[in-house]
Amino acid sequence: MTAKNQKNKKKSLLDFSLLKQLCHVQAPSGEESAMTSFLLSYIKKEKKNWEGKPQIFHGEAFQDCIILKFGKPRTAIFAHMDSIGFTVRYFNQLLPIGSPDAEAGTKLVGEDSLGKIECELMFDHEQHALYKFGRAIDRGTSLTYKIDFKETASTIQTPYLDNRLGVYNALKVAETLKDGVIVFSCWEEHGGGSVPYLAKFIYEKWKVKQALVSDITWATDGVALGKGVAISMRDRNIPRKIFVNKIISLAQKHKVAHQLEVEGVGSSDGRELQVSPYPFDWCFVGVPEQHPHTPHERVHKDDIASMIALYSVLMQQL
Amino acid sequence: MTAKNQKNKKKSLLDFSLLKQLCHVQAPSGEESAMTSFLLSYIKKEKKNWEGKPQIFHGEAFQDCIILKFGKPRTAIFAHMDSIGFTVRYFNQLLPIGSPDAEAGTKLVGEDSLGKIECELMFDHEQHALYKFGRAIDRGTSLTYKIDFKETASTIQTPYLDNRLGVYNALKVAETLKDGVIVFSCWEEHGGGSVPYLAKFIYEKWKVKQALVSDITWATDGVALGKGVAISMRDRNIPRKIFVNKIISLAQKHKVAHQLEVEGVGSSDGRELQVSPYPFDWCFVGVPEQHPHTPHERVHKDDIASMIALYSVLMQQL
Amino acid sequence: MTAKNQKNKKKSLLDFSLLKQLCHVQAPSGEESAMTSFLLSYIKKEKKNWEGKPQIFHGEAFQDCIILKFGKPRTAIFAHMDSIGFTVRYFNQLLPIGSPDAEAGTKLVGEDSLGKIECELMFDHEQHALYKFGRAIDRGTSLTYKIDFKETASTIQTPYLDNRLGVYNALKVAETLKDGVIVFSCWEEHGGGSVPYLAKFIYEKWKVKQALVSDITWATDGVALGKGVAISMRDRNIPRKIFVNKIISLAQKHKVAHQLEVEGVGSSDGRELQVSPYPFDWCFVGVPEQHPHTPHERVHKDDIASMIALYSVLMQQL
Repeated sequence: MTAKNQKNKKKSLLDFSLLKQLCHVQAPSGEESAMTSFLLSYIKKEKKNWEGKPQIFHGEAFQDCIILKFGKPRTAIFAHMDSIGFTVRYFNQLLPIGSPDAEAGTKLVGEDSLGKIECELMFDHEQHALYKFGRAIDRGTSLTYKIDFKETASTIQTPYLDNRLGVYNALKVAETLKDGVIVFSCWEEHGGGSVPYLAKFIYEKWKVKQALVSDITWATDGVALGKGVAISMRDRNIPRKIFVNKIISLAQKHKVAHQLEVEGVGSSDGRELQVSPYPFDWCFVGVPEQHPHTPHERVHKDDIASMIALYSVLMQQL
Repeated sequence: MTAKNQKNKKKSLLDFSLLKQLCHVQAPSGEESAMTSFLLSYIKKEKKNWEGKPQIFHGEAFQDCIILKFGKPRTAIFAHMDSIGFTVRYFNQLLPIGSPDAEAGTKLVGEDSLGKIECELMFDHEQHALYKFGRAIDRGTSLTYKIDFKETASTIQTPYLDNRLGVYNALKVAETLKDGVIVFSCWEEHGGGSVPYLAKFIYEKWKVKQALVSDITWATDGVALGKGVAISMRDRNIPRKIFVNKIISLAQKHKVAHQLEVEGVGSSDGRELQVSPYPFDWCFVGVPEQHPHTPHERVHKDDIASMIALYSVLMQQL
Repeated sequence: MTAKNQKNKKKSLLDFSLLKQLCHVQAPSGEESAMTSFLLSYIKKEKKNWEGKPQIFHGEAFQDCIILKFGKPRTAIFAHMDSIGFTVRYFNQLLPIGSPDAEAGTKLVGEDSLGKIECELMFDHEQHALYKFGRAIDRGTSLTYKIDFKETASTIQTPYLDNRLGVYNALKVAETLKDGVIVFSCWEEHGGGSVPYLAKFIYEKWKVKQALVSDITWATDGVALGKGVAISMRDRNIPRKIFVNKIISLAQKHKVAHQLEVEGVGSSDGRELQVSPYPFDWCFVGVPEQHPHTPHERVHKDDIASMIALYSVLMQQL
């Protein structure tokens, strides 16, 4: 087989039905428990087919987070489970969860004491978000984009690729992982709060202090769809250069398609690792997407394949 | 007795002279030691009348904070001791401590190397705060609003209900508390800094990871004076929904007057619990007030009674 | 000898060649390893001449940071090693590291895969920073101000007094230090991230919870060059007044020239100590400078002498 054929073979192995399922689970920041249940059930069912058999850590000491530990870990993958969305305030007002970016007319879904909700996003003349629905919705109800999953030969478009694709990547890497930790975190889109205790746990228990942030970045004038997974040299935070350079070298050595990202804004679970009281080295490694935080997030399938390939290399070699 | 009579009875038991005393203690962020002394002396004197006998933790390892531990704790009350105010800069300039909101002419009090100070707040044409006084005040001197405590049949108006009322609530709940922790924290109004080590202490020592933030919120278009204590479903931070829902259920089940708050801004000791390296569930439960951070903060006495009643239920049932 | 002669004698002992060397080491936030190597080599060579013999802590558990432990420590000096600068983004774009403040035409230096770089800072019409150079520079390359070290009888002017002078102060104090910790930290100019684990280490190992921040502040309407080291009573953060007052008393008692600083903005390693899960008391004590974060930072030599003198007193007496 030529290299090209191998690549095609790899791509064809990717079945995006799991990604679609992940997108359909509602889990805005602070309300991740449905995703926790989905993942625990998926992992318990699938792990018999995985090369390594992970120990699973979850429950009240982890709130809604999950940690998988494979073999003798040196590096952790952090994938956040939560999504952006809206909270119902008073009257028909909406407050953002994280930073949603949607046009009027966007369909929002949720559930309150009176039942299922499918309503529409509106804006008043001061650009405050409101909902349009046949009845009042309970205070504090969370609403998320209605899923419309579109797949072409080369792309996927759907709300919540950020970060269901990061979760998907972690689950794909899990299939062949021998040594490593996979962390499913919460609240990333809205100020964080779980990474501090997750970082504490994996550092104190296994001395793991290398971390890869499995998340989605945005396409820019320097990073384009279809050109490979993005290795982020910096965003609002600056990881230790020495660690980022190791990752770039491994991507080059193993000939995984990749792009170098350099940004001054944007943040991730990496920020919380950076300021944690543990000496974590971290790097954001993720697929670039168009229209981030809108209902139309779009990525290229080749970049997903590169992401999984690079993570597999990094978890072995770092 | 009818339910109404019971409620009236409960209200009549509230003696606000302690609240007034608390308001008179000067304790801007960073300079809480006078409040520490007041509270230690109050607690040592009063605890013989309390149903549970708390262990008291204080001293250099806690800076100016105090922790009371009753029985076998599952839940902690956090009440911050500090207040907003001003610091004297150079010439007659003032810098804010936290975010004071006062009109020109407001009386400010303090003390420096030359003695007691009662001066007046002014603003220059660029809205910079200045003081007007017969002499220069030492650099770094803290000034706070002069107390003017006004009580009617139904309301209390005074500077520093935020958060002397939260402290008052904790002391009232202490009278009948069997199992629980009460934490008096510092610096809440100005960036925090004590909650991280206080959270660490109570989690590591007693595995306590449920927290109620005993603090004051603001009256808005959705939360009004006299309609019960506010249970905050979110502010700038989003607590775990599952925990907030438990609190709302208990308030409903025990028929304590309450209101549901949903905000996008504002913060509390809850923020520091959220991002601490411990898996704290937290919820802000407090009285709404008019004119927050002004010298005219006003609350309704019925809401204070609801707050104490709800905390008593929650500390038993959570 | 008169007091004046003594002072002159002290000044003449200060040899600024070490400071100059420190300024020449390139170590923007995230890329401090060259400074780590320089300091380790300097310390290993010089410590035989020091009164106390420190234990040296460094290596992967400390990333690029260094801790020196002398005798039975009660107080730690924190001096950050990193500097501001720029990161090369895409095309000829530059992103700030920290908050550089330089005019067009400023010479920037660095190195990438193609070799050494000396280029020029430019701005586009929207004030975005760009570089002007004969070739494209690798993405993610760090650039720093070219050093131009100017010394007069009374002043020193050079880029990166912030914070090579804080490091210099720590090394000078080290010469006679009996009991204490010296911490060389990273990332201070760009969001921090090392102080949390450094604070954890020195508190857990030696119960050290007093800290002096050895850093550079700015000359203002209240703090002038040549009037002594600045003791900062507050900046954006407010340290515990009781601790700051101890420091002021010691400066007065020991007749060390000093100025009291009171600011509402600006931050330092003190911020991270403040919010760490350890009960640190901290105070910023440093030389004021003109033109901070520009290539023309300027300080007065007398203030440097005051800084070293005050630190020596404080490390003995606190």
